[in-house]
Amino acid sequence: MSTCIFCRIVDGSIPAKVVHEDEHTLAFDDVSPQAPVHTLVIPKRHVAAVQDLGESDQALLGRLLLTCRKVAADKGLAEPGYRIVANTGRDGGQTVFHLHFHVLGGRHLGWPPG
Amino acid sequence: MSTCIFCRIVDGSIPAKVVHEDEHTLAFDDVSPQAPVHTLVIPKRHVAAVQDLGESDQALLGRLLLTCRKVAADKGLAEPGYRIVANTGRDGGQTVFHLHFHVLGGRHLGWPPG
Repeated sequence: MSTCIFCRIVDGSIPAKVVHEDEHTLAFDDVSPQAPVHTLVIPKRHVAAVQDLGESDQALLGRLLLTCRKVAADKGLAEPGYRIVANTGRDGGQTVFHLHFHVLGGRHLGWPPG
Repeated sequence: MSTCIFCRIVDGSIPAKVVHEDEHTLAFDDVSPQAPVHTLVIPKRHVAAVQDLGESDQALLGRLLLTCRKVAADKGLAEPGYRIVANTGRDGGQTVFHLHFHVLGGRHLGWPPG
């Protein structure tokens, strides 16, 4: 069994509030929300971070952003707006080493972004 | 002449510290840096925000993230880490309405991201 918590959400062995699923991506609400809407978008395939992807992953990266866009629209954020955030490594504040994009909205997001 | 400041950086009529250029994307340092490294990655084609892109833009979105990855590596952020941020609309804090990804690093980025 995978020790990666997000892989275990993908295989269903850890429950999550899934809001979108397609062949390559999964989206579920963050368990420690930092805004009224805070959803994570991940590739189903295990990848640690953006840094571990290459040229052959261009389509997957595009798909992940299209899923972010869809999740935001489904959550009613298209008009008021939202922020997409991806953390890589220590300085980025990455805590789960399975690539994920945060989609945050429902309040004004301040600047700087951390 | 375009009234979009980022389109004018693309066409060279406004100077910028360009750090990467390819057929579809351009990267240049932010003029109001929020971290020791703070670079913007944009599509050369004018697009207001992620919300205005669709299925046919999957490759462009992937390319933009691969450019973020390259910029981060070129700036020495691959090992210490970094954060990628895209703001959409009012709540997201978007100030220039030409799609752009912020690549921030060189210090620890806090949480929440704004």
